[in-house]
Amino acid sequence: MSKLERDELEPVAGNGLLHRRIFLTSGIAALPLLRAVSLSAQQNVPAWMKAPGAPLRPYGERSSHESSVQRIVGPMPGTDGSGSSRTPLESLEGMITPNSLHFERNHSGVPDIPPAQHRLVIHGLVRRPLAFDLERLSRYPLVSRIHFVECSGNSTALYAARPAPGGAGVLHGLLSCAEWTGVPLGTLLDEAGALPAGKWLLAEGADAAAMSRSIPMDKARDDAIVAIYQNGERLRPENGYPMRLLLPGWEGNTNVKWLRRLKVTAEPLMTKDETSKYTDLLPDGKAMQFTFPMGVKSVITSPSGGLQMQGPGLYQISGIAWSGVSRIRRVDVSADGGKTWAPAALSAPVLPKALTRFRMAWRWNGEPAVLMSRALDETGTVQPTRDALLGKRGAAYRYHFHALQSWGVSATGEVRNVYV
Amino acid sequence: MSKLERDELEPVAGNGLLHRRIFLTSGIAALPLLRAVSLSAQQNVPAWMKAPGAPLRPYGERSSHESSVQRIVGPMPGTDGSGSSRTPLESLEGMITPNSLHFERNHSGVPDIPPAQHRLVIHGLVRRPLAFDLERLSRYPLVSRIHFVECSGNSTALYAARPAPGGAGVLHGLLSCAEWTGVPLGTLLDEAGALPAGKWLLAEGADAAAMSRSIPMDKARDDAIVAIYQNGERLRPENGYPMRLLLPGWEGNTNVKWLRRLKVTAEPLMTKDETSKYTDLLPDGKAMQFTFPMGVKSVITSPSGGLQMQGPGLYQISGIAWSGVSRIRRVDVSADGGKTWAPAALSAPVLPKALTRFRMAWRWNGEPAVLMSRALDETGTVQPTRDALLGKRGAAYRYHFHALQSWGVSATGEVRNVYV
Repeated sequence: MSKLERDELEPVAGNGLLHRRIFLTSGIAALPLLRAVSLSAQQNVPAWMKAPGAPLRPYGERSSHESSVQRIVGPMPGTDGSGSSRTPLESLEGMITPNSLHFERNHSGVPDIPPAQHRLVIHGLVRRPLAFDLERLSRYPLVSRIHFVECSGNSTALYAARPAPGGAGVLHGLLSCAEWTGVPLGTLLDEAGALPAGKWLLAEGADAAAMSRSIPMDKARDDAIVAIYQNGERLRPENGYPMRLLLPGWEGNTNVKWLRRLKVTAEPLMTKDETSKYTDLLPDGKAMQFTFPMGVKSVITSPSGGLQMQGPGLYQISGIAWSGVSRIRRVDVSADGGKTWAPAALSAPVLPKALTRFRMAWRWNGEPAVLMSRALDETGTVQPTRDALLGKRGAAYRYHFHALQSWGVSATGEVRNVYV
Repeated sequence: MSKLERDELEPVAGNGLLHRRIFLTSGIAALPLLRAVSLSAQQNVPAWMKAPGAPLRPYGERSSHESSVQRIVGPMPGTDGSGSSRTPLESLEGMITPNSLHFERNHSGVPDIPPAQHRLVIHGLVRRPLAFDLERLSRYPLVSRIHFVECSGNSTALYAARPAPGGAGVLHGLLSCAEWTGVPLGTLLDEAGALPAGKWLLAEGADAAAMSRSIPMDKARDDAIVAIYQNGERLRPENGYPMRLLLPGWEGNTNVKWLRRLKVTAEPLMTKDETSKYTDLLPDGKAMQFTFPMGVKSVITSPSGGLQMQGPGLYQISGIAWSGVSRIRRVDVSADGGKTWAPAALSAPVLPKALTRFRMAWRWNGEPAVLMSRALDETGTVQPTRDALLGKRGAAYRYHFHALQSWGVSATGEVRNVYV
């Protein structure tokens, strides 16, 4: 083994974590004979090379061999339209979530909206109430940005007293990331002539729940957009087709889908969706309201709960990190339950309020281990431990869980969610 | 109109081009009463708000109202598997191409490959020939990068003596962009122990055409990856499932799909796919071979040929720019057939060898106009005029068209491809 190879495989923290240089340099002699097998015979010509394959298609579909990769549809007692389906994070890589696997959270199902009949109305404290159809909206200056959307109820199972079973998707899959294209909301508010007294906006969806949230005007004029494209194509129905509010970094339900109405108001309107839920009950019986930004957070997606390690040896730890207020600055990984940490490789581009893929090499020695990740964002905020978060919030809190999460690896290679 | 508004709408080049600041600042008072209509009555409650909508789905589909957005499938005389389908660029926005609309170029159809039966073999001038299946390959250090893929035959209609009809997709749609995740090829070559005498690689696909190209070792060790994910999910069948070669910035056919074999060789092997085609015939009867990188290029996708302008007024010019060797530094736009130019707004992140979205505001006065875009990359290379490109290459050249393209707008608002 050459010196370079020794350097690459140098441990950087306890229990087998290796230097992230492996992911940052192309073509290094990093992992001799990790998994490949020696070639004992020439390949036979497989059946699929002996006849022409399938024809061109106007709109492609994935391989039938991948059909088991699905959103995890939650139980929907008494309704088939309300509830959520989760992105199978453990089956995905990179930062982009394909549109067909973007998580869903619907309050009364997905409406089927003919775009020519849909209107977005801006009214209330404005000089001139206006209505936009999709064609008109599309003529305004567009911007494109890659942002995550996360449900404020994501990871809520981690508040439970005992570790819930499940993989990264089951526990954390109310989270996706896409390139959104739309019109800056500030442009539309200027067009309508929003009055200085208008400090809030009511945003209302065109679903049967008329999902409604009050949004501070500061956010509307900061980086909010009315999105009409998702990863290049028009929004998917379950993501608000033909138009949705996109409030980068803020809890998912405020990113109102099927957006039909923006009313400029002096005060928040205290809608059913911000009083009956999406508030945070504190130990003293008071509740916090309008807790919008999602916290700095990270999750290891590979390995993930429910998976089985294939014996001791070299593994890749892969995960995602994000912050609702800024860019990810660093992600540390631990293989010894948080005793020692080392920085993971971050995949460029690292964008504000977007998922950032991190990766780490790990040599598993076959003994029980606990894997953890810990994100730090550009504001200097560090993802807290579960104990610290619960100590601050108390037992009744249900939203905005963003503490460290741990995967325990047993001596037999079983991976499961554990508390440390 | 305030001073700010006057500034925003300030002309920056001939025939109505306006300052790109409109796209760079959020919430500016840019476009008073551009397209919105005054609100004369309250919205009625639409039918789709009166009953619960559709249930959650394990794998989503797009709206039925968008089904007309399709790849443009080319004629395939005598076969249903060979040929190409093009990305409908004029219907998309941003930089990411959704997987279902990624262009196709197949030489003998799309094979249906059970991943567990697929092997990638590395052999030839190596110390130890190796075979990888998908599971083994997935254990190597992964990297994720956003890159375009462009067929070297893209835009070939622009070599014709008369301007071809069609929109951006028909003329330039052998071009797409995705986030690719895979293993750096250099890591695999090191694992196999590629010998110093190995200066080239034969890359062979597992389709019925056994599509094969010779690749210089320098590129393999620079930024080549064996890709296994596309926009987060596993590769699509028509993009090489379960694994493909990804040579960022190089002509599409070298990005061998369904990759089954990499043979390290001293010289290029002169395969059928690099001698019968994908060579560039010069006026003196000689042909250039191994002309790999795609040139610096840009295309306006909105407006686009075949579209009809809706009368004089303010419009958004939107397009894409890319370079096979570096980042886009600047895109200039002209509305007067190239007499005057002004820089467009570039949408961040601007990444190397990736599509970059540019946008420009334009006030059309209703007179005939000619819209053009011109890209400049970080190496300082400027997209050439069509005359300059043809003057250099002669009449027999068929590949690597990357000259300026012009959309003529008639007084009646008809948009079509023109030569200036």
